[in-house]
Amino acid sequence: MLRGDRVALAKLISRIENNASDVASIMAAIYPHVGRAKTIGVTGPPGAGKSTLVDRLVERSRKRGDSVGVVAVDPSSPFSGGAILGDRIRMQDHCLDPEVFIRSLSTRGRRGGLARASRQVAHLLDAFGKDTIFIETVGVGQTELDIMELARTVIVVLVPEAGDTVQVMKAGLLEIAHVFIVNKADRDGAMRMQTELEMMLQLHPEAAWTVPVLLTEAANDQGIDAVMEAVERHGTFQTSDTVTQHAPDHRVHEFLEVLGEELRARVDRVGTHRQDLIERVRRGDIDPYSAALEILQDQRALTEILGADE
Amino acid sequence: MLRGDRVALAKLISRIENNASDVASIMAAIYPHVGRAKTIGVTGPPGAGKSTLVDRLVERSRKRGDSVGVVAVDPSSPFSGGAILGDRIRMQDHCLDPEVFIRSLSTRGRRGGLARASRQVAHLLDAFGKDTIFIETVGVGQTELDIMELARTVIVVLVPEAGDTVQVMKAGLLEIAHVFIVNKADRDGAMRMQTELEMMLQLHPEAAWTVPVLLTEAANDQGIDAVMEAVERHGTFQTSDTVTQHAPDHRVHEFLEVLGEELRARVDRVGTHRQDLIERVRRGDIDPYSAALEILQDQRALTEILGADE
Repeated sequence: MLRGDRVALAKLISRIENNASDVASIMAAIYPHVGRAKTIGVTGPPGAGKSTLVDRLVERSRKRGDSVGVVAVDPSSPFSGGAILGDRIRMQDHCLDPEVFIRSLSTRGRRGGLARASRQVAHLLDAFGKDTIFIETVGVGQTELDIMELARTVIVVLVPEAGDTVQVMKAGLLEIAHVFIVNKADRDGAMRMQTELEMMLQLHPEAAWTVPVLLTEAANDQGIDAVMEAVERHGTFQTSDTVTQHAPDHRVHEFLEVLGEELRARVDRVGTHRQDLIERVRRGDIDPYSAALEILQDQRALTEILGADE
Repeated sequence: MLRGDRVALAKLISRIENNASDVASIMAAIYPHVGRAKTIGVTGPPGAGKSTLVDRLVERSRKRGDSVGVVAVDPSSPFSGGAILGDRIRMQDHCLDPEVFIRSLSTRGRRGGLARASRQVAHLLDAFGKDTIFIETVGVGQTELDIMELARTVIVVLVPEAGDTVQVMKAGLLEIAHVFIVNKADRDGAMRMQTELEMMLQLHPEAAWTVPVLLTEAANDQGIDAVMEAVERHGTFQTSDTVTQHAPDHRVHEFLEVLGEELRARVDRVGTHRQDLIERVRRGDIDPYSAALEILQDQRALTEILGADE
């Protein structure tokens, strides 16, 4: 993978998606090669035109000569287990370009862990040598906010119809945005939304970086260069300031997160070691919480389930 | 709490929100009293008018003589840590009614666990004796979908401006809805959206329950009785069918989830037992993944960190 083998990269990503037992070893091996890429997050409510925007930004990045990775996080239905990848069809032009690597991540019925997988795939693309990595999330839930934490620059995309700006605050988007975009700016209310956002941002105490509010029509390729310029400016600002300060905390957070996820994943071993207990829960002979306490208060059961790797 | 003490209820909910170490014991104690309440989930994109709708539904439920609980899940910003509770101000009338208990849950900077906390608070309100429990989530991310799994009947609220119906599919809402509502139905496009949703639902294989698509204007109190009627009908349908079939799986899922969360939470003990390792990660002397492996491959460290409750 580190020698530029795309097939190897795709295989490693699959291992991460499936949370294979050697994920920590893989990540430990590639970690020394991580940290060179520009990571750009793009989030906002469904229907805001994020995919089209990312499409345009990928095109601009390629024109500059950057190699590009795209991690698209689709919140697939917990029932059907499938993500709808219609948007990605627009990416077809880029699919023929060997310098663009696009991967959609979905939950596939797994619970949680999407923020972890997104971060790790972004690390892989970084180590692989991509210059710019876009991380696009559909939706505005907590998972999406967590994912955006791993981006150096976060673009929040809205549309005039997205509801009033109070909704933006409620969704927690005001605090994570480094660049605001009002897309589909040919529609009614675009400029009003721009003004409202600018006013809200002025109330915000964090003065070191002034968050620009840009109007775009991604579908018509309007306003994209201004977005690229804002991202570039924020990248320069970040390098000189916050990234270096926050990096140690981010590393500790990542350590505790990966360890916590691994310990949590070991709960599956209950199925091997205490099938009897699962059956009792299934039959209703014991409630779920008493069953959990039965494991937690039993040192031998804990050691079996959580025992060290051989 | 089981004797109807509201202060005791509020205290227990706080313990759950803070994921206190005795949550499993609390839940084990109340579990025998869980299962009587009707749980109704209300979700949809920000700005769809969910809170107003819930407000109306609470009013109707009270008129029938039901006691009511409301769990409102706000995806608070991971940065500011505060939820914006403006919507809840509309609930003030109900606040004076001792038979209505309203609680907003937010992430408060904690990662994940919101689905767990929501489920447990709903269990508490159920055991407390509430007849009907509304669970309202803001946003349409994976966390929100997880939360909706715990409701017996799920209402998905949309507005004509919410984007085309493909967005509904992308957000995974089609599969979780038992009742669709197009709110703010006095606006342009409401009936077109209704028709589109009905067409999409016809493509859907699950034929046992026909998902109704209802038009409402919650702000003007229009169409609410039809929603109540649809929820009632679905409740009857559920009781006779799926709930009883799925309950054993749900219990096992809840068992593994609470155990997994507890094991994950114990990662905090690394701070006590291996402060040295955290310092090495902070300084960059070891990468986060190698540090995680160091713990995972060391039985003594694991036992210290994960040791059984005394």
